[in-house]
Amino acid sequence: MSEEEKRKSREERLDRIFRFALEIDREKTIGRQTYLSDLSRKENDAEHAWHMAVMILLLGEYANEKIDVLHTVHMALIHDLVEIYAGDTYAYDEKGKETQAAREREAADRLFGLLPSDLEASFRALWEEFEERKTPESRFARLMDNVQPLMLNAAGEGRSWTEHGVALSQVLGRNAGSPEGSAQIWEYAYRHFIHPSVEAGRLIRDREEPFS
Amino acid sequence: MSEEEKRKSREERLDRIFRFALEIDREKTIGRQTYLSDLSRKENDAEHAWHMAVMILLLGEYANEKIDVLHTVHMALIHDLVEIYAGDTYAYDEKGKETQAAREREAADRLFGLLPSDLEASFRALWEEFEERKTPESRFARLMDNVQPLMLNAAGEGRSWTEHGVALSQVLGRNAGSPEGSAQIWEYAYRHFIHPSVEAGRLIRDREEPFS
Repeated sequence: MSEEEKRKSREERLDRIFRFALEIDREKTIGRQTYLSDLSRKENDAEHAWHMAVMILLLGEYANEKIDVLHTVHMALIHDLVEIYAGDTYAYDEKGKETQAAREREAADRLFGLLPSDLEASFRALWEEFEERKTPESRFARLMDNVQPLMLNAAGEGRSWTEHGVALSQVLGRNAGSPEGSAQIWEYAYRHFIHPSVEAGRLIRDREEPFS
Repeated sequence: MSEEEKRKSREERLDRIFRFALEIDREKTIGRQTYLSDLSRKENDAEHAWHMAVMILLLGEYANEKIDVLHTVHMALIHDLVEIYAGDTYAYDEKGKETQAAREREAADRLFGLLPSDLEASFRALWEEFEERKTPESRFARLMDNVQPLMLNAAGEGRSWTEHGVALSQVLGRNAGSPEGSAQIWEYAYRHFIHPSVEAGRLIRDREEPFS
């Protein structure tokens, strides 16, 4: 390559990265069902990803298996990006969840395809790892993906649960894999966020509680 | 320590960490002057920190000096937390900037003091490192702290600049340290975000441009 060609190729790489960096600004407009703890409004995907990432930095030491923290934080920061094109699917929306996988796979092709091929491959691999939940990092990230809204829901009078009439069995179903990320944090979250919400009637008690 | 005491001390540590994790939810309510690229509203500190962190993951290879990416991302994710108590100071608010350091130091004592002492020390050290800008990681994080809003301002018709009557000299003053983070990214950002905004009259041309 001539100097001029090299310069052009460098410029093109930065163009692609910045095109992606600007496109993901839209993550801030993807709404979630969880309210901020002061109940002033619901949070969005970018805020949720930020909160999860900080919680991984705070709580990584409690993972069942030793985790690579950078890898886990990277996963958390990008795990919802596909929703820019595929939309958020509420945790307890059974109908939406049927088409979710296909919608999100298509969105991943389109979104990560904006990046230079090496970054496309690494971002896509991280997103798939998160979805598959087969590594210690993805198990811990998924736990935080669930614990962060549990914490906010408990602080916010369980409003998003009562609005949707959510039952304990649904929360436990969604958290079936949570103990695999960290047994300690899962038990803490159960006792401090879920159990008091069941007691207060904010989650429908439709089964026995798992901790006495 | 007896088993019971150990259990209690473990529980207390998690209580402190979760107390902090819930308190920082307020970061989502600290407004900034930068508009989202679709101009629908201004962004908040949590969204900005998330965006900056992803941009560090995308662009870390361009740092002038090799950086520890986890360290840099951690710094980015928490650099604005003190604003929960100290408020956001607009980049071009000269009056607010006079009292900013004292307000933020007090806020850091109060906020990081919620954490167990080891985490308090590490979070506080990262925040101070960011403020002092003496390491490759902090220089790169500060560059991203500036480039992320430059990118959004350029995409959003320079609205926050025109609303505040911002001049090129102010943007260059704020970015005096940016080339030390990454000369390549600084030049790219200048040519793609600042120069076109000067040309379009969205930034007041009150001095010569640094690149021809």
